[in-house]
Amino acid sequence: MSMPTSASAAASTFAAGSSPSDDHIMLELNIANQPFTLTNWYKKMNWISTIALIFPPVFGIYGFFTTPIDSRTFLWSVIWYFCTGLGITAGYHRLWAHRSYSASWPLRLALMLCGTGAVEGSIRWWSAGHRSHHRWTDTEKDPYSIRKGFFHSHIGWMMFKSDPKKKGRTNISDLNQDPIVVFQHKHYLPLMIFMSVVFPTLVSGLGWGDYRGGYFYAGLLRLVFVHHATFCVNSLAHWIGDQPFDDRHSPRDHVLTAFITMGEGYHNFHHEFPADYRNAIKWYQYDPTKWLIRVCHFVGLAFGLKQFPENEIQKGVVQQKQKMLDRCRARIDWGIPLDQLPVMEFDDFNEMAEQQNLILIGGVIHDVTNFIGVHPGGKALMKSGIGKDMTAAFNGGVYDHSNAAHNLLSQMRVGVVRGGMEVEIWKRAQREDKNVDLVRD
Amino acid sequence: MSMPTSASAAASTFAAGSSPSDDHIMLELNIANQPFTLTNWYKKMNWISTIALIFPPVFGIYGFFTTPIDSRTFLWSVIWYFCTGLGITAGYHRLWAHRSYSASWPLRLALMLCGTGAVEGSIRWWSAGHRSHHRWTDTEKDPYSIRKGFFHSHIGWMMFKSDPKKKGRTNISDLNQDPIVVFQHKHYLPLMIFMSVVFPTLVSGLGWGDYRGGYFYAGLLRLVFVHHATFCVNSLAHWIGDQPFDDRHSPRDHVLTAFITMGEGYHNFHHEFPADYRNAIKWYQYDPTKWLIRVCHFVGLAFGLKQFPENEIQKGVVQQKQKMLDRCRARIDWGIPLDQLPVMEFDDFNEMAEQQNLILIGGVIHDVTNFIGVHPGGKALMKSGIGKDMTAAFNGGVYDHSNAAHNLLSQMRVGVVRGGMEVEIWKRAQREDKNVDLVRD
Ligand code: HEM
Ligand code: HEM
Ligand SMILES: [Fe+2]
Ligand SMILES: [Fe+2]
Ligand SMILES: [Fe+2]
Ligand SMILES: [Fe+2]
Repeated sequence: MSMPTSASAAASTFAAGSSPSDDHIMLELNIANQPFTLTNWYKKMNWISTIALIFPPVFGIYGFFTTPIDSRTFLWSVIWYFCTGLGITAGYHRLWAHRSYSASWPLRLALMLCGTGAVEGSIRWWSAGHRSHHRWTDTEKDPYSIRKGFFHSHIGWMMFKSDPKKKGRTNISDLNQDPIVVFQHKHYLPLMIFMSVVFPTLVSGLGWGDYRGGYFYAGLLRLVFVHHATFCVNSLAHWIGDQPFDDRHSPRDHVLTAFITMGEGYHNFHHEFPADYRNAIKWYQYDPTKWLIRVCHFVGLAFGLKQFPENEIQKGVVQQKQKMLDRCRARIDWGIPLDQLPVMEFDDFNEMAEQQNLILIGGVIHDVTNFIGVHPGGKALMKSGIGKDMTAAFNGGVYDHSNAAHNLLSQMRVGVVRGGMEVEIWKRAQREDKNVDLVRD
Repeated sequence: MSMPTSASAAASTFAAGSSPSDDHIMLELNIANQPFTLTNWYKKMNWISTIALIFPPVFGIYGFFTTPIDSRTFLWSVIWYFCTGLGITAGYHRLWAHRSYSASWPLRLALMLCGTGAVEGSIRWWSAGHRSHHRWTDTEKDPYSIRKGFFHSHIGWMMFKSDPKKKGRTNISDLNQDPIVVFQHKHYLPLMIFMSVVFPTLVSGLGWGDYRGGYFYAGLLRLVFVHHATFCVNSLAHWIGDQPFDDRHSPRDHVLTAFITMGEGYHNFHHEFPADYRNAIKWYQYDPTKWLIRVCHFVGLAFGLKQFPENEIQKGVVQQKQKMLDRCRARIDWGIPLDQLPVMEFDDFNEMAEQQNLILIGGVIHDVTNFIGVHPGGKALMKSGIGKDMTAAFNGGVYDHSNAAHNLLSQMRVGVVRGGMEVEIWKRAQREDKNVDLVRD
C-alpha cells in the first residue's frame, strides 16, 4: 500500500465515491459492506440465525396465550433454563473457549448436551468467535463489538452477514482434541433440535402428561430467556457498570448483569483475567457458574481450576485506581509549579519583604497579603511572620497546620530562596553547635 | 535537657521510680496526676460538672416513672431539644468557637439563650476548650483527647480535674468584643437555670397546664439527650467512620454520628476545614445546623458564611486517596526493580537465550520457562519469541496484551539490554530508510 504523493492523486482518491468507477467498486464490495436497499436487504440477512432468533419468541407468545401453565412445567422450565444457561457459561464459555479449568468426560458430556439446548451454535463455532472477541475487543475484528452499538452486540451481529475479510481468525485446534466437541460439531442440527425442544417436551409429557406446556414453556419460551440472558454478556456487560481492573476497553462489572447472566456480569474482571475460572472474585458477589465449577471440583468432576495470582489482580486494581486519581488530580489547580518560580537569595527576600507581605516557609516565599485578614489563627500571628522564615512555626513550632493549610500555601507562592529551607533554624544550630555547617549550594 | 552519658547515670534514671525520693515527687504532683485511692478520689472529681451530668438523668428517670406523658409536652420537649442542640452547634460551635459566619444581634441573642439551655458552660469557656481541641487534637493538650479513651472524651474530661500545666491556652480575645458573649459569661448561673428548666417548665405550664411534665420532659430528660448528643461530637465522631480528607488525626465522618449530633458528624471534614460553616458538603448529607445557617442567611440574619475553596477541598481528597493507594501499593510484590537487574548487550542476550527461555520485551529480558505451558495465547507463539525482541509482537503486532499480561511480565524479568528497546525494529528501519540511525548509547 502506498500513500498518494501528489495533490491530484489525493483529490482523485477522495473523489472516488462519486467517480464513474463507483458501480464497479460497489460490485466488488462484500454484501455486508453494501448499504441497505429495498432490493438487497434480504441478501444481507443471515436467515438461519434470524429464524432461530425470531421463531421462538413469536411462536412462544402464541403458546403462552393458548396454553395453561402447569406448576410442574413451570418449575421444570426454570430448571431447564438454568441447565442450558450454565451449559453455555460453565461449558461453552469458561471450559471450552477459555480452558479456565478441565473437566472429566461425564461433566463435559453434560455441559455439551445442556449447552446444545441453548441453541447458540456448536462449541467450535462459538469458541472461535468468542476468542476473537477477547483478542480484538472493541475493534473491527471483534465479532460483537459494542462500538457498533447495543443492538449489534446483542443480536445484530448474528442477524446480518459480516465481511469475511474483517473476521479475526483464532486458533481453536485445541478443541479438536476433545471428541465430545468434535461429535457435537458433526451432529449439531439433530442434537440441537432434540435438546432444545424434544427433550424438554418429553420430560414434561412423560413426567406429568403436559406435552404442550413442555413444548411452549420449557422448550420455546425458556429458550428465548436463555438467548437474551447470554446475549447480555456481549451487550449489557459492555455497556453498564464499573471498570475496577482496566478501563481501556468496554467491559464492565455490574451486579444486574451478573444476575441476568448467571454470574458473567463481572465482565471487566473477566476480560482482564480471561483464563480465571471465576468472574466474581468476592464471595458475596453473584457467580453461580463459579459455584457450579467449585461443586464439580469438590466431587471430582472438574480439576485444574485456573486462578490468576491475587498479587497480579491487586496490581491491576491499584493501577486502575491510580489512573482515576490522576484524572482527578489533573482537574485541580495546584498553583504555580515550584520550578517555574523565580529563585533568589535570602537577603533579597528580606529586602522585598519590607514592601510586600512575604513569609518564607519550607524554602518557598509566600505572598500572604490577601490571607492576613482571614487567617483562622488570627491576624497577629500572621503579621509576626512577615519577612521571616516561619517553617518551624508553621509546622508545629507555634501550630502544626493541617494538610489543608499546607495546600492553601501553594496558592500563595511567589518565589524560592536558594538553599532557603529553614535558613534561620540552621543559623541558630550553627550558633549552638559549631559542628553544623550553614547550608550553601 | 541533657542525655545521660554513662551507663550508671542511665541506670539511675530508670531506677528513679523506686528511689527514696519517690514520695517527695508524689507530693509535688498536681491532684490530676495522682493515682486514684480510697482517700483522694473525691478530690480528683470536678463536682460541679459531675453533679450537672448526674442529677438530670437520675432525677429525670424518677420523673419518667412518676409523670404521665402529655403529647403536647412531648412535642415541646423535642422542639426544645432541637433548639438547645442547635444553640450549641450553630451558636457555640460554628459561630463563636470557629467564627465560620457572622450573625446579627437578634440571631446571636437567640443562639446564646438556646445554647445556655444546653448547660455546657459559657460560650467563652466552651470556645476556649474547643479551640484547644482543634489546635492540639489528639495530643496531651487536647482537653477531650480520644487518645485517653472513649469515656474520657465523652464525659470523663469534665468529671475529673485536669492538670492546669497541660492545658493548651488559646486566644479568645475576639469573643470579648461580643457583648452578648460577655453578658452571658457574667450572668451564666441564673441564665442557665432559667433556660434549662424554668423556661421549658413555664412554656408547658402556662401553655397547657403541664408544669410537672414540662419540668421533667422538656427540662431534665431533654437536657440529658442534648448533653450526650453533643458530647458524641467529641467521642463518637473521633471513633467511628471514614477519613476522606486526612487521616493523620482521629476525626471521622459517619452518617450515624451526624444524625445524633445535628450534622456535626462529618467531623473529618470539620477538623480539616474548621473555618467552613458547613460540616457536610454534599446536599444529601444530614447537616441541619448548616441548613439553619443557610435559612438565617436567606432571611438576612446571618452573613459572611465562610466556605473553603472547592479546589482546596479536592486537593485534600486526592491526597488522602493517594495515601491510601500508596499503602495498597506497598503491600504488592512488584517484582525486582528494573535498576537492580543486570545490564547486558544485545549479543549477550542472544547467546544466553540459546540455553535459557529468554524473551526481550521493551528492553527487558524475561525468563519465560515456567510460563510457556500456561500462556493463554498458546505454547507455539511463546516458543517463537525465544531469543528475540518481541516488543512489537507483544504490544499489538501479534496481540495487544492486557495490562494484566504486562504486570505478569514484571515477575519474569531477569535482565536489561543496553539500549535494547526495540533493537530489532530499529535495525529493520535502518535497512529500509538510511536516515534512521541504529540507537547506541
Ligand atoms: C500563609 C501562611 C499561613 C496559612 C496559609 C495558614 C493557614 C491556617 C489555617 C487554614 C488554619 C486553620 C486550622 C488548620 O487548617 O490547621 C490556621 C490556624 C492557625 N494558624 Fe495559620 N496559617 C499561616 C501562617 C501561620 C503562622 C505564620 C502562624 C504562627 C506564627 C500560624 C498560626 C496559626 C494558629 C495558632 C492557628 C490556630 C489554630 C486553632 O486555633 O485551631 N499560622 N492557619
Ligand atoms: C512472557 C511473555 C508473555 C506473557 C506474560 C503473555 C501473557 C498473556 C496473557 C496473560 C494472555 C491472556 C490475554 C490477556 O491477558 O491479554 C495472553 C494471550 C495471548 N498472547 Fe501472550 N504473553 C506473552 C508472550 C506472547 C508472545 C511473545 C506472543 C506472540 C508472539 C503472544 C501472543 C498472545 C496471543 C495471540 C494471545 C491470545 C489472546 C486471545 O486469544 O484472547 N504472547 N498472553
Ligand atoms: Fe466481552
Ligand atoms: Fe470470555
Ligand atoms: Fe473534634
Ligand atoms: Fe470544631
